[in-house]
This record gives sequence, structure tokens and C-alpha cells, in this order.
Amino acid sequence: MSDHDHVQITPMNYDSDRPPAENPVKIMDLTLRDGHQSLFATRGRTEDMIPVAELMDEVGFWAVETWGGATFDTMHRFLNEDPWERLRTLKRYMKKTPFSMLLRAQNLVGYRNYADDLATAFVERTAENGMDIFRTFDALNDYRNFETVVKQIKKSGKHFQGCICYTMTEPRLGGNVYNLDYYVAKAKDLESMGADSICIKDMAGLLAPYDAYELIKAVKAAVSPPIHLHSHFTSGMSPMTHLKAIEAGVDIIDTCMTPYAYRTSHAAVEPLVMTLLGTNRDTGFDIKKLATINEILEKEVLPKYKHLLDDSKVSIIDINVLLHQTPGGMLSNLVNQLREMDALDKIGDVYRELPRVRRDLGQIPLVTPTSQIVGVQTVNNVLHDTPDERYKMITGQVKDLCYGLYGKTAVPIDPEVQKKALQGYPRGEEPVTCRPAEVLEPELEKAKQEIGSLAKDIDDLILYAQFPVTGKKFLEWKYGITPVPVAVKPITMEDVRRRDILIKKA
Amino acid sequence: MSDHDHVQITPMNYDSDRPPAENPVKIMDLTLRDGHQSLFATRGRTEDMIPVAELMDEVGFWAVETWGGATFDTMHRFLNEDPWERLRTLKRYMKKTPFSMLLRAQNLVGYRNYADDLATAFVERTAENGMDIFRTFDALNDYRNFETVVKQIKKSGKHFQGCICYTMTEPRLGGNVYNLDYYVAKAKDLESMGADSICIKDMAGLLAPYDAYELIKAVKAAVSPPIHLHSHFTSGMSPMTHLKAIEAGVDIIDTCMTPYAYRTSHAAVEPLVMTLLGTNRDTGFDIKKLATINEILEKEVLPKYKHLLDDSKVSIIDINVLLHQTPGGMLSNLVNQLREMDALDKIGDVYRELPRVRRDLGQIPLVTPTSQIVGVQTVNNVLHDTPDERYKMITGQVKDLCYGLYGKTAVPIDPEVQKKALQGYPRGEEPVTCRPAEVLEPELEKAKQEIGSLAKDIDDLILYAQFPVTGKKFLEWKYGITPVPVAVKPITMEDVRRRDILIKKA
Ligand SMILES: [Co+2]
Ligand SMILES: [Co+2]
Repeated sequence: MSDHDHVQITPMNYDSDRPPAENPVKIMDLTLRDGHQSLFATRGRTEDMIPVAELMDEVGFWAVETWGGATFDTMHRFLNEDPWERLRTLKRYMKKTPFSMLLRAQNLVGYRNYADDLATAFVERTAENGMDIFRTFDALNDYRNFETVVKQIKKSGKHFQGCICYTMTEPRLGGNVYNLDYYVAKAKDLESMGADSICIKDMAGLLAPYDAYELIKAVKAAVSPPIHLHSHFTSGMSPMTHLKAIEAGVDIIDTCMTPYAYRTSHAAVEPLVMTLLGTNRDTGFDIKKLATINEILEKEVLPKYKHLLDDSKVSIIDINVLLHQTPGGMLSNLVNQLREMDALDKIGDVYRELPRVRRDLGQIPLVTPTSQIVGVQTVNNVLHDTPDERYKMITGQVKDLCYGLYGKTAVPIDPEVQKKALQGYPRGEEPVTCRPAEVLEPELEKAKQEIGSLAKDIDDLILYAQFPVTGKKFLEWKYGITPVPVAVKPITMEDVRRRDILIKKA
Repeated sequence: MSDHDHVQITPMNYDSDRPPAENPVKIMDLTLRDGHQSLFATRGRTEDMIPVAELMDEVGFWAVETWGGATFDTMHRFLNEDPWERLRTLKRYMKKTPFSMLLRAQNLVGYRNYADDLATAFVERTAENGMDIFRTFDALNDYRNFETVVKQIKKSGKHFQGCICYTMTEPRLGGNVYNLDYYVAKAKDLESMGADSICIKDMAGLLAPYDAYELIKAVKAAVSPPIHLHSHFTSGMSPMTHLKAIEAGVDIIDTCMTPYAYRTSHAAVEPLVMTLLGTNRDTGFDIKKLATINEILEKEVLPKYKHLLDDSKVSIIDINVLLHQTPGGMLSNLVNQLREMDALDKIGDVYRELPRVRRDLGQIPLVTPTSQIVGVQTVNNVLHDTPDERYKMITGQVKDLCYGLYGKTAVPIDPEVQKKALQGYPRGEEPVTCRPAEVLEPELEKAKQEIGSLAKDIDDLILYAQFPVTGKKFLEWKYGITPVPVAVKPITMEDVRRRDILIKKA
């Protein structure tokens, strides 16, 4: 019998209750968060998760990702859903499988660093409302931005999963900055912080199969916590990357149920289940259970979401990711920016300027939101710079980055660019080097004064504190002060049928 | 440096003109045949291939599949294109890259066995018109059905690629019939026939990664000709299957350009190119060239075809393949059959009856067209059989199969079923065991008499001989005897824009 490093061929057994494998691949399902966030603009409603919740609870997933990322914002802003309610509701239906959330470290579930008091309260309440696993990431991989949230995760007795955002400067793993040594060092940092598991977070699907093999092997050899791989399908490589990671000994893999899989989401779980039958890393899953869940999703749920699929192109993958090592959406955003300025002819200049700007700004990872920061500044340079003057128009976010509000960059920011950016900067012309949240005043009490009696409990208050404008609007809907607009109400299967008929006519 | 059996890590080199690898994976591109046959109902027009033909000729593909399969039928029947003309036209644009076609052995490019004289003439003319590689398959893997065409392929001095159709009785490779020994024996048969290369033809995407590894290793050890893997993406496993096949030493892999990839087509080539950089099996391809081709396809070609995509479900893969080891379309055909008879409630009975019928009929491969033969008969049994009488309504195709018109089945047909099927069968109640085409009268002269002067040359005649009804109609369009209907004329980008506007309104 051949073996494939950590994968070894074993006698075949198709029974749904076959004995557990020696070292099963653990699977975390992302259908209920990253799946619809990737494919359906995060518009997945709780009512469309309930039909499959109990069935999913029976599969044997290591965890289900149910919360965090963009869902907190989208729920209250576009769906008239109280985000806390989804957590509590799903927890009632799913009693066996741990819940995971995507936590943007000190950014919590918003778009800026929040003060320590708010961050602590958020984590505490999230844990109390049912969260088990806190997948924590920072766009700069600056783990000082983890300190406050991790303290509370541990205090609440929950699982802290620390992320290393995967990014590159070369077409493949290597170069001076984001090389094997970098990732091993980051893994060790996370282990020292007390990470219960470590996630390689590849939001763009950049991690190539044989690099994954080397990376997982190196990280597994260097640290003790289990290693979890999150690699989007966007480039087309992820099924191969998963397989080599599994052979290298990765502990947990992220997948989605088939109807929420592929495109910019994740590889599907079912082919992987089939692949690992008859090996010592068999998942143990019953593929008939998965098929039943998929039938419900395809028939009862997806008709209400399929209109949100990006059909601007036929291609299922985005090879710009392979060409430029940039996240899927980043280049289309740049193209849109240029189009608005009627400057599409400058796209070549943008491609050339981008690595320069990235290097100037400290060779930061190209992940949300730093990819946007680099991208927008690049377009600005292409449109406005002259031979005499670079960085003629510097964005507010670049100024914040240069000041140190995001954290420490992988290599120092170009001192000239930094100096130019901080000229007249309100907070000061000398950058700070402290943990970014240290310069933030406490927020909770101030928010409490502002919102007054509209926030009925701490959960309402935390929502408002992170999202003062849309949060207040939501609370007014919640407590019947303002009527709920039609736009945030759910569509029905009847609406879907009517739309399909009109489209067929056309 | 780790090695992955036949794949070994080498120093990285990104240059588009980097030195060739030690044992490059050879790639055959299927965009111009299986790609649009899978995704766009074979409606790809020659005029939409010309914009990318020369660029594709520069990539370095081992071959491009440009012809055969369903294209000969579809071209003359639905596109008002002379199939021979596509071959000649593309050959003018593509001077370096060999052409491959899918040849249905004695079925040529039609749906029944044709007589030896017609088969010989077809292959001869195809070779003269520019075909280089004849990928030859038979649904029963009965290589007697290859004899006539192979004789002419060799006489014409062309490349004979013999296929082993991949099929299963178990959820994974194994069982009593289609096991490793079966595939090795078939490979040896093909080698004895003089195959210049051997193709594992997995039309349904059933071949699992670790089975591919064992299969390729066993076949490579047993025979000398290069081994070529054709495995559709339908089940989601093919990227993983490709990688393990490559590690096992497979010589050639089939892929499509990204806009024609995934779903029921093939994995895309670009992620594989990226994956194999920095290994001894680097394809040598320049990914920027591939990107340029894709841009043209996405912008100038696909808008005219995207309406043909199957959007009846959101899922990109079909896990029925994994559940039942049946080709993608087979189960939906069965469902449609039941729906027409208002008997959808019997689908469970169909799933139970299917393996029994398949066993009765000789455990034949479930590939086109034998999958349909088994499927339709299964539904008939479910709808009409009584406790006293099985096989109450036997299809004409099952009778032909029982008579021996298709060839030799993997195991003998159930004698009782065979006897019942042949009761009153026109050709005789005793099955034949000869090479099927031996019972067929020569066809060419008869066809020539029938079509008369409407066929101006041998190519016209061969088209008519295979497709008497639609072929005659096409020749009447070709020679201006009948006006060309609007339905077979190409749509323009203007048509596309108009349609998109109407749909957006709805
Ligand atoms: Co993600
Ligand atoms: Co095919």
C-alpha cells in the first residue's frame, strides 16, 4: 500500500457508522457565514438557516462558522435582524457542534479599532450568547491588536484561534518578507499568546499546493496547537492545496456545503469526504446526510439568493489572483475606480505602481482592508502624481496607517512617504509605535449617554457603539419607533416565482 | 527538499522562457470541443474560435481537441456549419499544435455502428482534412469495435489513442468487475492493438484521487505508451485527482481555459500551471498568454453563449455522481422520465432497480450511450413490471444490446432477460458474438445512390451517410437549394445587448 505522508491507504469501509479513522481530517463548515458572505453579499437570513440547522448538527463537523465577519453589520443594516438573536437562535437548534466566528481582532465586527472597554464587552457578550471559537485576525498580523480580545476570550473560557493572514510578494511562497520563516515565527508568536489553534487564513486562495505542504509541515514541526487551513477557491487551487495540506498533517480544513461552494467561496465538503474514504484520515462523515442538507438548501433556500450571484463573467475562478497575487475583489475595485475617472487606459500603470506603493507602505499584507488602502492610494498616484511629486493626494487611511493607527508593518514604512503623509495630521506628525488601541478613549459610557433609553440592554448598546448610525436606525425598527422599510424585509418563494416568470419572458 | 513521488521540488523560476522541466506534465486543451459541448450544448461556432486560435497555438499544448464528439452532428444540424470546414479552417490558423478528436469508434461521430466501408472512409478523410490524434472509445470497452478505424488511422499515419472508459460498481475503485486488474488488462489490450497512447476516459468525474494514484501507477508499470487522463470536474474531485495522477507519473492531462472550465466541463489549466511551477513537472506555460486568451473569450465570445449555461441549480458540482456513481445527466434524465409519467414518487424504486438492471444487462459501463440504455429500461421496469413479470416493456436498444449489436458486455447478460428480449427480434433470436459491424451491410454506395448529385464530394457523402435526414437538409442549405432558417444563424453581440437589457428590466 502506498502512503502519501500523513495519508495512508486503509481497508475500504463505506458504512455510515464505520469506525473512526486513526487521524481524521476535521472539517469546519462555513456555509452559514463565509459561504453566503462570499457568494450572496452576506444576505443569508436566519430563517433560511433554521431548515438545515439540526441536520448540520448531526454531520460531525468540528465546528460551524455562524457569525462575525460582515454578518453583524449586514444583519442589522440590510436584513432587519438583531445579530445577537441569530446567535441565540441557531444555538437552540445546534446543541452538539461548536460555533465559530470571524473576529477582526480590535476591529471586532466593524471597520476601525474600537476602544478596549468596548472590545472587552463585545467578546464577553458574544461568549455568553453562545460563541465557542473565536477566530481572530488582524490585517497586518500585528498581534498586539489581539491582546484585549484574547484576554477576554480566555477569561470567558472559550477557544482562541489565532490567524496568520496569508499573503505574498512573489507569485509563489518566498521572497524577503512573507517566506517560510515569517509564517513559522508568527505561529510561534500565536502559541506564546496561548492560541488553542492556529489558522492559516488565505482569503484570496493564493496558497499553492506544494507551498501549503511545506508551510503546514514547517508550522506543525514548530508549534503544538492544531493547525487549521482556510483557503478560498477563488484561484482554483484550493482542492489541490487542501489535499497536500492534509498529507502534510493539517488538522482542520474549511469547506462549504456544495450549493454554497466554489467561485469566491470554498471548495465543497462532499468530494473531500469521498476522497478520504479508505484512508487513515477519513472524515467519518455520511455523504447521504450531506446530500439531504443540500437538497433542502438548493430547493428551499437558494431560489431566494441566486439573483445575488455575480454573473458579470462566466469564469468560476479569477486568475488575476494568480497573475498579481491580489485578492479577488481588489483588481475589479481598481478598474471601477479608473472607470469612474474615465481613465481605464491607465490600468497598466496601476499594475506597475501597485507593488511600489505596497513596498512604500511597509509591504503590508494584501488582505481586507489593507488591500483597499494600497489599491486606492495606487490609483491616486497614477491619476495625480507628477514626475516631480509622488503621493500628491494621500488618503486618510494611508495617513492613519503612517501614524500607526493600524499597527506595525512587516517592514518599515518609507520615511519620506510617512513624513509627507503626517504633515498636518491632526493626531500628530510623529508616528506612534504603541499598541494602536492605547490611543483610543473608552467608548462604552459615551455611547450609553448618546443612545439613552433606545438601547434596552448591553447587547443593544454594543451594537450601537460599533454602528452609531445604522445601529440607531435598527434599534428604532426593533422597538417600533420607525416603520420597517420594505427593502429590508425578506423575499418569499412567491416573489421568486414572479421574478423568474418575468425573466423567462424577456 | 520533499518529493511527491514523480513530482519533485526544484528551484523556482518564473520567467516565461524558463528552461523546460525534466518531465513536464503535457496538457491537452479541450476548450474547442469538450468545453463547449459540456457547458454550451456544443453550440460553439468556428467564428468564435478564430479570435483565439493563433494565441492558443503559441501556448505549448501537447494537442488541442477541436473536433468529433457531438460537434459533427451539432454543426450541420444547428449551426449551418460544414463540419469538415471547421477542421480545415482551424488547421490554417493553428500550425504548430496537433489536433485531437473524439472518435466514437465504430459509431464514428454518430449514434449507431456504421459499416466498415463508411468507417474507413470517414477516418481517411478526417486524417486528410487535418486530424492528427484519434481518441477512440467504445462504451463497452469492446476493442473489436476499434479494429476498422484503427486500421485506417495507422494507414493514414496518424496517432491512435485508445480509451478505457472509467466506470464503477462500488463508490470507489474496486469490486468484482471494474477493479485494478480490469483496467490494467484493458491497457495491455490497447498496447497490443498498437495504441500510441492510452486514455483513461472519466466522463463523469468518478475517479477519486487516491484511486487515480493507484490506477496510473499500475497502468504505467504494465504498458509502455504514454498515459492520458480525461476526468471531468462534475463531482468536484478532478483537481485533486489530477494532482495525484501527476504524482503517479501520468503523462498528459486534459484541461480547459478558465471561461470554459468547471461545472460539468474540466478543471482549468491556469491553477495547474501555477501549481507545477518550481517542480520537475512544470508545464512550461506562460500564464500571461493564458490570461490574454481568457480575456478575449470572456469579452468577445462568451456573451453569446452564457444563456446556454444550465442555471437550474446554483451548485457547481453534482454530488449524485458521488452518491450513485452515475454520469451527471443520467439521473436528471430519469427524473424527467418519471415526471412525464407523473411518477416522481417512484424515484426511490428507480435507485434500487438501477443496479439490478445494470447487472442483468452485463454490468456494462455507465457512460453515454449505455447509461441511457440502462436508465430508460430501469424506469420502464419500475413503471410497468408486476410481481409476476419483470422486463414487461423492453426497449429496442436493450434488445439490440442483448442481440450483440453493441459488443461484448463485461459479464454475461442474464440469460433469461436476454431470451425474453430476443423473442421475435427481427435479426434473430440467437445472439451473435462476432464483431458487431460484421453484421452490417456496406453503406457508402447505397448512400451515394440515395443522395445523388446533392453530395458534391466524398466529404458531403460521408456527412449524408451518417446523418441522412439532417445531413440532406444541411446540404440543401449549403448549396442554396433551401433557404437557411433564422434559427441556425449566429447571434450577434447586438442581439446579446438587447437581450440583457430586457432581462434587466424584468
Ligand atoms: Co474567508
Ligand atoms: Co469528456
